[in-house]
Amino acid sequence: MEQRVSLITLGVADLERALDFYTALGWESNWTDGDVAFFQAGGMVFALWGRDKLAEDSMVEDPGGWGGITLAHNVRSPAEVDAVLDQVRAAGGDVRRDGAETPWGGYSGAFVDRDGHAWEVAHNPRWTIADDGSVSLG
Amino acid sequence: MEQRVSLITLGVADLERALDFYTALGWESNWTDGDVAFFQAGGMVFALWGRDKLAEDSMVEDPGGWGGITLAHNVRSPAEVDAVLDQVRAAGGDVRRDGAETPWGGYSGAFVDRDGHAWEVAHNPRWTIADDGSVSLG
Repeated sequence: MEQRVSLITLGVADLERALDFYTALGWESNWTDGDVAFFQAGGMVFALWGRDKLAEDSMVEDPGGWGGITLAHNVRSPAEVDAVLDQVRAAGGDVRRDGAETPWGGYSGAFVDRDGHAWEVAHNPRWTIADDGSVSLG
Repeated sequence: MEQRVSLITLGVADLERALDFYTALGWESNWTDGDVAFFQAGGMVFALWGRDKLAEDSMVEDPGGWGGITLAHNVRSPAEVDAVLDQVRAAGGDVRRDGAETPWGGYSGAFVDRDGHAWEVAHNPRWTIADDGSVSLG
């Protein structure tokens, strides 16, 4: 198994509401049939799909709530962290931790989307972000 | 907010056990301090961290179990799906759906890792996988 993730699918209660949120953040779905929506996200794909269908397809029970996975969006400066968190608020996201310096020497904030999926928005001065948005350790 | 995910962090009960699992699948951590482990995964980073710390950092309550996010690892053929699922079994993962043809014209199986995180292993003949492993829609 190669060391990579090809697709992240977030289960959602209402595809249109979820699409509205990510669209308000500046994302644009590359393909949707009204049931699932795909976004090309760098060298991988990000998807939104009904949470009940995703649970069934994943062969898991769904107790509801958060499940131990958090996504992060890294940016190039602390000011950009704050700007993204402002966008999140304007899009109806729930910012739970304002941008602030972190114990690991960076700057970050945290939000949850309209379906309770957790995101961190971070500037890590030790990681490199290329022009195409790809992130490299060290 | 640019259309990309920089980091996926999976909350785990025991970092060493989780590292053993992903290492048995052929992955190699690029950095760890015994508390968190980072893997360079194409143009993004994949991380393992204590689930309680991740919940606290993400400002969420954790009801336990699956939380509506499934990851997928796409490969280049149905045979490769079966080969990865064999690797997963050998690594102590729980294969819950054997490789089989799907309604969308592909071939996939599903497993959960030792912490209950759900993965699909898939061949989608309509998606392109480049030599570097990056995936493109259409």
